Amino acid sequence: MATIKDVAVLAGVSVATVSRVINERGYVHADTRKKVEEAVKQLNFSPNEVARSLYKRKSKLIGLLLPDIANPYFPQLARGVEDRMQEQDFRLIFGNSDEDEEKEQDYIQTFIQNNVVGVISSTNYPHSPIYENLKIPVVFLDRTPLDSPSVYADGREGGRLAAREIIRRGSQRIAVMQGPVHIRPAQDRFEGAVEMIRQAGLDYHVVQTTSFSFNEAALWAEELFSKHSETDGVIASNDIAATAVLHEALRIGRKVPEELQIIGFDDIPLSSLLSPALSTIRQPAYEMGREAAGLLIKLIEQAPIDQKNIQMPVEFIERGTTRKVNANG
Amino acid sequence: MATIKDVAVLAGVSVATVSRVINERGYVHADTRKKVEEAVKQLNFSPNEVARSLYKRKSKLIGLLLPDIANPYFPQLARGVEDRMQEQDFRLIFGNSDEDEEKEQDYIQTFIQNNVVGVISSTNYPHSPIYENLKIPVVFLDRTPLDSPSVYADGREGGRLAAREIIRRGSQRIAVMQGPVHIRPAQDRFEGAVEMIRQAGLDYHVVQTTSFSFNEAALWAEELFSKHSETDGVIASNDIAATAVLHEALRIGRKVPEELQIIGFDDIPLSSLLSPALSTIRQPAYEMGREAAGLLIKLIEQAPIDQKNIQMPVEFIERGTTRKVNANG
Repeated sequence: MATIKDVAVLAGVSVATVSRVINERGYVHADTRKKVEEAVKQLNFSPNEVARSLYKRKSKLIGLLLPDIANPYFPQLARGVEDRMQEQDFRLIFGNSDEDEEKEQDYIQTFIQNNVVGVISSTNYPHSPIYENLKIPVVFLDRTPLDSPSVYADGREGGRLAAREIIRRGSQRIAVMQGPVHIRPAQDRFEGAVEMIRQAGLDYHVVQTTSFSFNEAALWAEELFSKHSETDGVIASNDIAATAVLHEALRIGRKVPEELQIIGFDDIPLSSLLSPALSTIRQPAYEMGREAAGLLIKLIEQAPIDQKNIQMPVEFIERGTTRKVNANG
Repeated sequence: MATIKDVAVLAGVSVATVSRVINERGYVHADTRKKVEEAVKQLNFSPNEVARSLYKRKSKLIGLLLPDIANPYFPQLARGVEDRMQEQDFRLIFGNSDEDEEKEQDYIQTFIQNNVVGVISSTNYPHSPIYENLKIPVVFLDRTPLDSPSVYADGREGGRLAAREIIRRGSQRIAVMQGPVHIRPAQDRFEGAVEMIRQAGLDYHVVQTTSFSFNEAALWAEELFSKHSETDGVIASNDIAATAVLHEALRIGRKVPEELQIIGFDDIPLSSLLSPALSTIRQPAYEMGREAAGLLIKLIEQAPIDQKNIQMPVEFIERGTTRKVNANG
């Protein structure tokens, strides 16, 4: 690999001059600048980013904190963030918090030690002092406090939408799965669904869940049908839970969607390949990742911001776990 | 946050002395060292990692390059890498190559510019000059050249195992899905499966696929049944393809596993929740990630290595898309 000395020799200038050009500091004559830039190009010279960042006090590193990349909702988010960041040559340092506040703080601290210039965090602890004390921009993703820059989907409307669609398709004894209580978007959807079911004057029961894990999802699905065998509609807390409910329903011989309808939440990639394919409320995870990255880049570059809280739309994706209705319901 | 000056004041020594202690350079009297260490602890002082890395020429950053985190096989791998790295305070810079050689080289180069001390790469281009010229350790993950440190599953044995299990359960007209030709582990499994089917003297046909994408998987599944309607067993190139085949088979009214058996590859988390649940060849993705991280840490620390090529076992996971046999087959 070429060194700064090679560049200086080829351009016929001193190392200090090359440094001034690269770091955009101090006076350099236009002709000299041109010679240096040509030498840089010709030698494919790439200055050491760490050395530059110390001098310019700017790196191109971003910290990305997610609860768990192994939850199928998050890889899409992460891809969105990465694709947008990559377009402007930012790189991601990545960590999984496992929704553990201590682990999260530990990660944020090492992000700072590695001189990240911004953080995107999908956290349950947005009011933690570690965020307040940060001297670099933060965008909260998915799990959101409204006073800080954030990108999130409209969970409450998502819950309402799920209830509205399952009710107009004829479910009357509805089980609503309540996601983990400390995860705010899960509660938003739950409350939205319950609000709409109450408005319709229908009966419902609640199945509490405490995580989004695959193994536990299967247990909650079993519990649901053993405790509430009369259930004819399930609003699941996410697509993993919905997949587990579908699996259990078919195992015990329920006909889906004729006797039992199921609506998930997220629209993870596998949902369309289930049998029957899963009807769900789509959150645009990839686009949310891109938006969060775009907002953070603006904050870092101190560009004008139209909107610091970006709410993304949710939509009902009609597939095979809900019955057909004609357009006028 | 405490500064190095605060530490010096509290310990009653000079900043230079604190620096010598922190960076483990030069002579410091044992008592002085103790005072500094106590002050560091009391103030919860964390030195700037970039400044340290410049001085000590060592960061705690690792580059992790994967083809695509949105393929459900890779989040498990990434978690394994991250969990192991986190135990020793290493942090990950993360990139998706999309199996594009240029994008991959670009990422490796920026990893280096950010002073990573090691790289884990799941690449199709292990013989690229960019790896040869690296002055830091590299561990190849999943997609492997045998002359370099690597962690991989035994794909060929996996293919043999899939064929053996589907044959002893009675399939006779087998479709073998051939994964993308440039992905070596996909070819290993394909060759293993074909070898075993030929040994058994059975008929088979090949369905070529060119990616592991969700959308295309559905198209190949349709093609499979329209071109080869007599198929009574499918060895899929991975679990996504297997899920698409199962979906299409049920859609056109095939009884699984009575008329048609399906075996996947990978054992992604959702496979156990399909209906029927997917029989598959398991690769221990999480454990492979952990092993790769452990091997890289040893290389970085120049610790003794027992084995620089770690082959992980594959196993048949029997679920609902294959028929039952008694133990003596």
